[in-house]
Amino acid sequence: MQTSPGYSITVRLEIRDRPGTFAKIASAIGEQEGNLDAVDLVGTAKGVKLRDVTVECRDEAHAGRILDALRRIDGVKLVRWQDQVFRIHMGGKIHIANKMPVTSRAALSMAYTPGVARVCRAIAAAPQRAWNLTIKKNSVAVVTNGTAVLGLGDIGPAAALPVMEGKAMLFKEFGHVDAYPICLDCRESDELVRIVKAISPQFGGINLEDIAAPQCFEVEARLKSELDIPVFHDDQHGTAVVVTAALTNALKLLGRSFADLRIVMTGVGAAGVACAKMLLAMGAGHLVGVDRAGAVYEGRTEHMNPAKEWFARNTNQERLRGGLAEVCEGANMFLGLSAPGLLAADHLARMAEGPIVFALANPDPEIDPAEAEKYASVVATGRSDYPNQINNVLCFPGLFRGCLDARASDINQEMLLAAAGAIAALVDDDHLSSDYIIPSPFDRRVARDVSRAVSAAAVKTGVARGWESEEAVLHHWVE
Amino acid sequence: MQTSPGYSITVRLEIRDRPGTFAKIASAIGEQEGNLDAVDLVGTAKGVKLRDVTVECRDEAHAGRILDALRRIDGVKLVRWQDQVFRIHMGGKIHIANKMPVTSRAALSMAYTPGVARVCRAIAAAPQRAWNLTIKKNSVAVVTNGTAVLGLGDIGPAAALPVMEGKAMLFKEFGHVDAYPICLDCRESDELVRIVKAISPQFGGINLEDIAAPQCFEVEARLKSELDIPVFHDDQHGTAVVVTAALTNALKLLGRSFADLRIVMTGVGAAGVACAKMLLAMGAGHLVGVDRAGAVYEGRTEHMNPAKEWFARNTNQERLRGGLAEVCEGANMFLGLSAPGLLAADHLARMAEGPIVFALANPDPEIDPAEAEKYASVVATGRSDYPNQINNVLCFPGLFRGCLDARASDINQEMLLAAAGAIAALVDDDHLSSDYIIPSPFDRRVARDVSRAVSAAAVKTGVARGWESEEAVLHHWVE
Repeated sequence: MQTSPGYSITVRLEIRDRPGTFAKIASAIGEQEGNLDAVDLVGTAKGVKLRDVTVECRDEAHAGRILDALRRIDGVKLVRWQDQVFRIHMGGKIHIANKMPVTSRAALSMAYTPGVARVCRAIAAAPQRAWNLTIKKNSVAVVTNGTAVLGLGDIGPAAALPVMEGKAMLFKEFGHVDAYPICLDCRESDELVRIVKAISPQFGGINLEDIAAPQCFEVEARLKSELDIPVFHDDQHGTAVVVTAALTNALKLLGRSFADLRIVMTGVGAAGVACAKMLLAMGAGHLVGVDRAGAVYEGRTEHMNPAKEWFARNTNQERLRGGLAEVCEGANMFLGLSAPGLLAADHLARMAEGPIVFALANPDPEIDPAEAEKYASVVATGRSDYPNQINNVLCFPGLFRGCLDARASDINQEMLLAAAGAIAALVDDDHLSSDYIIPSPFDRRVARDVSRAVSAAAVKTGVARGWESEEAVLHHWVE
Repeated sequence: MQTSPGYSITVRLEIRDRPGTFAKIASAIGEQEGNLDAVDLVGTAKGVKLRDVTVECRDEAHAGRILDALRRIDGVKLVRWQDQVFRIHMGGKIHIANKMPVTSRAALSMAYTPGVARVCRAIAAAPQRAWNLTIKKNSVAVVTNGTAVLGLGDIGPAAALPVMEGKAMLFKEFGHVDAYPICLDCRESDELVRIVKAISPQFGGINLEDIAAPQCFEVEARLKSELDIPVFHDDQHGTAVVVTAALTNALKLLGRSFADLRIVMTGVGAAGVACAKMLLAMGAGHLVGVDRAGAVYEGRTEHMNPAKEWFARNTNQERLRGGLAEVCEGANMFLGLSAPGLLAADHLARMAEGPIVFALANPDPEIDPAEAEKYASVVATGRSDYPNQINNVLCFPGLFRGCLDARASDINQEMLLAAAGAIAALVDDDHLSSDYIIPSPFDRRVARDVSRAVSAAAVKTGVARGWESEEAVLHHWVE
């Protein structure tokens, strides 16, 4: 596993002025396979220098070993250390900004009372005017109850907030969408639906995030039917869109088709069900889902729920049973949507020659991609520090940008397929290769093309709604 | 009534090139008592000039008359006009900003996955860490259900949003607080309480706004008792704090005391009850509340509710009855928290010599201040375009700044009195006068002094909570 800026520490060292002392530090970090990133002089005193040394590590334990190694160096005193990731999280990652200053009486009279009252009356007379005259036009709620956060599981709303803030940052950076976290201390489905409906008037869309299956299916379905704005559970459909885009290109690269695929999928939760639906829609030949009770097949009784019942009815036509090792036999694709380290080399050895491996568990994949590459023809993970990152950021910013631009009332299958197609199309044949089946999250064309494709699909399927002309908006008040 | 930038229109006129034509425009606006603000040339054609003329008006009807007058001018064609207030509201007044760019893999690895997972785990292990590691530290929810917005009444959540956005702007501009509107489609008290509790984990404070009485009393009381963060209904306590500060200085100017006061108060809603409580706490001598059924007295049976029952028991010891005219007899202060135009000159004529008049109805006061000045010794309104503006912005930004700085668990009476004292103290004796009893909303010392006074009162009354040291925060993850 490579080191990552996501595990970066800055160590303050008091270093005795003696030739070769810093070399000892560099080699100690090297021996521990730490990645020496930056060295800053922060002070000097008689016979000593104070330096801040920043080191990229692989994980917590690795950082701990590097700290121990530094403490053991003769002539070096470890003064303190800091975690750079915690550093950037202090006070949160987003803030509210005003579009105009309110530093004069004139501004106050226009942005607040008395002027604002007229705008309120105009909206009260026709609520759809809120689309033009408030933040609704560009606002999306990132809603979670913290029951299935990243690979961490049920950590609750407060602990989920850093992820939702990060999500809001990506909405802004890539989609120019103003997203705001709504972390709910609420575990009951009826209550979740009621709360999201109650907060919805000010939003142009709802992005559900990290809500555990099977609850997420019911909550999303009810909100979609009861609200007139797009409702999208990113863990399901965002993942499905990007997996479909990446797989489309992987198959193109290998000269295979969806029909040729024998897919083993670990994790039959939110993402698993949505991916299965989209892959079947693309014509996937054979697909088996595996959870902690083994293969999901029709007639299985233990560890079932309505979503898995759907899975049992619609996948695994061969009724394969047994554990992961058994169902890997002869399969040519592994799609991991489960937990770190779940896939072993001997699983890959049982699979058909040169399988496609998508190991998408976060933050750590089902198998170390370096290990997977020994067997696989194409490897993709969810990590930002490896090639072929299956990253939902390729979908949601452009998807919601397109929905807001079209004032869409819903997100439908055509819009999701349009998004997947737009993402896949950005990797042209000249550049398509085993380590480039999906565009970079930093490819600025992605959100642009996805938003255009989604807006067009919204218009085509009749869920787009027109915009009142600016002239009309600016005349509401004298009526 | 003066013209205001809050009623400002920009008219595009096609003006024939003939001497004196623009003079006709200027005089037409002048005859209608419009305030000609700016003239911009936007184009020329054969024999004509295209100009955008911006005019400040008094209200909608006044703007309508000015437009008609312009349409009647020979040699002038009205091409179009726009409302400048609607113009600045297009797309809303606030947006979300990122504290760091997410334009590199390194940034993505730190702000999002894999780095963010470690921060989530740290908070899951000890939820109070969310105060340091998320936006909670500086975030306040501005919560309404739109049932009592400004002077507009029950206009619902979507129509209330422009006011809540304006409020958020003021929180940021004056208190450096990140406030976000939460406009709830919800009318039932239990549901309101449940929803606010559910969204509370990510906020450092709750500002309730424009919720109708008597519901606001129950909702605030229950939230205060059930949440461990400050809950503040600005319409009640914000108004009471600023009224108390302004009245303290008015009495100082006139050499009178709270005990000398005979107060007639119109409006026995949220603001009325809170003001009455605070004025009684300051030792106000006599106070009578008047609603549409007349004076509120003990034993009155029609148009009562629990809040008015409290009012009947605790005010009007003389058991005065009758309408506004009767109870104005001999009173020396009018406090209007009700509706435009409710107070007439002959009401003032019945009052004692040189009464204090606070006419705070929004957007238009109970009496035109120009009219009131003929009788009153001191006049204050809620408008930003007159002297002595009783503006809640003098209180809430500094109040919440002080609460957040102290990580306060509650807002108590001592903190409110400290805020009122800090505001009043900013008008020194040399400058105290009938048109300067309260500092300007743009006096930057206000939020600073209020926040310091409130933080100190929070510490003194034991509701302040300490902050974990930065060093500790940056070491959470290796445990």
